Amino acid sequence: MKRVMLTVAYDGTNYCGWQLQPNGITIEEVLNRELSSLLGEEIRVIGASRTDSGVHALGNAAVFDTDTRIPAEKLSFAMNTRLPEDIRIVGSREVPADFHPRHCDSVKTYEYRIWNHTFADPTVRLYSKFCYYNLDVDRMQRAAQDLVGTHDFASFCSAGSQATTTVRTITGLTVERDIEEPRMVRIRVRGTGFLYNMVRIIAGTLMEIGMGQREPEEMRQILEACDRAKAGPTAEPRGLTLIGIAFRPLDRTDRRSCR
Amino acid sequence: MKRVMLTVAYDGTNYCGWQLQPNGITIEEVLNRELSSLLGEEIRVIGASRTDSGVHALGNAAVFDTDTRIPAEKLSFAMNTRLPEDIRIVGSREVPADFHPRHCDSVKTYEYRIWNHTFADPTVRLYSKFCYYNLDVDRMQRAAQDLVGTHDFASFCSAGSQATTTVRTITGLTVERDIEEPRMVRIRVRGTGFLYNMVRIIAGTLMEIGMGQREPEEMRQILEACDRAKAGPTAEPRGLTLIGIAFRPLDRTDRRSCR
Repeated sequence: MKRVMLTVAYDGTNYCGWQLQPNGITIEEVLNRELSSLLGEEIRVIGASRTDSGVHALGNAAVFDTDTRIPAEKLSFAMNTRLPEDIRIVGSREVPADFHPRHCDSVKTYEYRIWNHTFADPTVRLYSKFCYYNLDVDRMQRAAQDLVGTHDFASFCSAGSQATTTVRTITGLTVERDIEEPRMVRIRVRGTGFLYNMVRIIAGTLMEIGMGQREPEEMRQILEACDRAKAGPTAEPRGLTLIGIAFRPLDRTDRRSCR
Repeated sequence: MKRVMLTVAYDGTNYCGWQLQPNGITIEEVLNRELSSLLGEEIRVIGASRTDSGVHALGNAAVFDTDTRIPAEKLSFAMNTRLPEDIRIVGSREVPADFHPRHCDSVKTYEYRIWNHTFADPTVRLYSKFCYYNLDVDRMQRAAQDLVGTHDFASFCSAGSQATTTVRTITGLTVERDIEEPRMVRIRVRGTGFLYNMVRIIAGTLMEIGMGQREPEEMRQILEACDRAKAGPTAEPRGLTLIGIAFRPLDRTDRRSCR
């Protein structure tokens, strides 16, 4: 028996998110089905991040236990011949038997993309939110800095969250236009944990500031209010991509934090 | 009566190309239907480039005649509220009554994108070809230069072409990796006219050179052979995007070339 971690990329457009659910197809369901078929065992993956319906990922993670003799590193290639082309395994490796991707220290990086132009572009529409009004990226970047650090992010958490605390740590948050394609605005946020819809509410609030509907200085007041009603709307899922997750225990020197 | 030119962007994934045909939905069909519905007249557009099934565009062009009193510049916005989100009108303006987008001098720019990495990326898969083998972009760029200029491109033309001559002029051809995303290779080609499948056969041939299956020096021999069998395969349509078309007559000083 060994535990294998997969790094999973997907276009979330046609999925009802990561987590198994009765009303539609999910990433977890497809992975369970194809792993079970490939390995001839009943496989149940444990995901690192249960992304919402329509959200994309370049580096989500999932672990599972298997008796297979196929080397862990080869599983990505074997799986990719079976998976639909909107899901790819972009890495696979063996991890310690007690490694759990949600019960350990990790840093997640998300990107929220906004196509900011007079007209939408059909070839980026599935992976970005369209915004007609000109965004002042400097204002957005200034406001974003008030979110960096350890705070109570209750204002940026949708109802329905099961979190016991709304305190989280954002270690980095940047708002930039692409150098080569300045019509694309990217909000990049990195942190050790995120509340339900937190990145999308941050994106929705930053967009209001970028459009001039709010002042950058309001961000601090919104944060301190600990009231979801004070923040902006939840920006639509298609703009959000989970870029990657770094797990601290996997560099063996610090494994205790994982258990 | 006035003649209006639309600049049209589309994700070609779900269309059987530009041109009306009985077996599937096309861009031309959707434009005719929605323009006729908006304007209350029977509208038939004339397209500048009849892109193939699965090929994308950021700046194709179409003209049509109308009695509407809606200003030409407003038609893009009116149409975008009606069109499916994989087609956008990104510009509209009045043009001379005798302007025909295929019977005049123009320069077209195409881009062929290749995602060059160990694993495919689901979020770029619809707009690029996946290539597992490492591409030597310097070799591709070197070979590409032999195609620049006025040549008989018969080796780069699929059977079924109705062209009376296979002589065409390529004014620029570059092969580059993205600075910010070096896994993406872009072949950009600009010219005054292209044969059936010409850009996709150029892309397929350059990829063979990039993978080391052929030498850059062979490009000249392939060109001189005037034999489709000597060139590489026709690269798949999803990698191709018509970036834009510049029409010479529309800067009024040189209108005669259009008639």
